[in-house]
Amino acid sequence: MTIYFAASISGGRGDQAIYMQIIELLRSHGTVPTEHFGDPSLTAAGESLADGAIHDRDIEWLRRADVLVAEVTTPSLGVGYEIGRAVEWGKRIVCLYRPAEGRRLSGMIAGCNAIEVHRYDDPTQLPAVLQSALSIS
Amino acid sequence: MTIYFAASISGGRGDQAIYMQIIELLRSHGTVPTEHFGDPSLTAAGESLADGAIHDRDIEWLRRADVLVAEVTTPSLGVGYEIGRAVEWGKRIVCLYRPAEGRRLSGMIAGCNAIEVHRYDDPTQLPAVLQSALSIS
Repeated sequence: MTIYFAASISGGRGDQAIYMQIIELLRSHGTVPTEHFGDPSLTAAGESLADGAIHDRDIEWLRRADVLVAEVTTPSLGVGYEIGRAVEWGKRIVCLYRPAEGRRLSGMIAGCNAIEVHRYDDPTQLPAVLQSALSIS
Repeated sequence: MTIYFAASISGGRGDQAIYMQIIELLRSHGTVPTEHFGDPSLTAAGESLADGAIHDRDIEWLRRADVLVAEVTTPSLGVGYEIGRAVEWGKRIVCLYRPAEGRRLSGMIAGCNAIEVHRYDDPTQLPAVLQSALSIS
C-alpha cells in the first residue's frame, strides 16, 4: 500500500515530532513517499526546490497513492488543497485531529462525508488509531 | 458575475477587517454569496450550523460561482480545500496574499499554475489589485 502523508509545512511546524511518529507508524502499513515531511530540519521556510516542482511532484505522489493520511491539527493551505483534490479523485482520505480548548476543526473537513476524521488526545493513541483506520480496506 | 470569497474562519480571524474590506470591493464587481465571512461577529468558533450543512452549502455556492477569490495570508484548511476542488472543476481562482518576514505562502498554492496569486503589501492597494485581477475575463 502506498500512503501519502500530508502535514503542515508553511502553516507551522509545531507538531513536527508527532508527524515523525505518524510516519514511523505508517511505514509498518506501507510505503510513504512524503516521509521527509516529518524531518526536523524541514522548517516552515520549506524545501529548497521551486514551488512548481514541489507542487507537481507532490500532486503526482498523491495521485499514485492508495490512501491520503493527513494530520490536520495545524491549519494548512497545502493540506487542505491536497484533501480537496483527493476528494475529487475519489481517493480514500483519513484525517488525524487532536482536539483542544479554543481550537476547532474546519467545517469543510469535519463536514465532508468523503473524509474519515479520527480524533486522538495523545500521540500514544496513534498506533491503535492508525491500526483501526488502515485495516479497513 | 458571482464571486465566491474564501477566507480563514477556524484557522484564525486575525485578518477579519481586511476580509470585510475585500468583500466590500468585490460587491462592486458582482454578487458575493459568502459575504458573512467578513462579519466581525463570526469568530474562529464558526457558524452555529452543523458542519455537514456548512460544507454542502459552501460547496454548492462555490460550484455555482464564476470565480473564486481567496485571501490566503492566514493558513486555513477550509480555504485550501475549496481551492483544491475549484482547481479540479477548472474554475478561475484568484488568491490574495500579503507577504511578511517569517511567513511563506504554501508551495502547493504558489506552485499551482491553475491559480493566480496577487501579492499586496497594504490593504490600500486592494482596489487596484482586484480591479486588475477581475477585469481580465
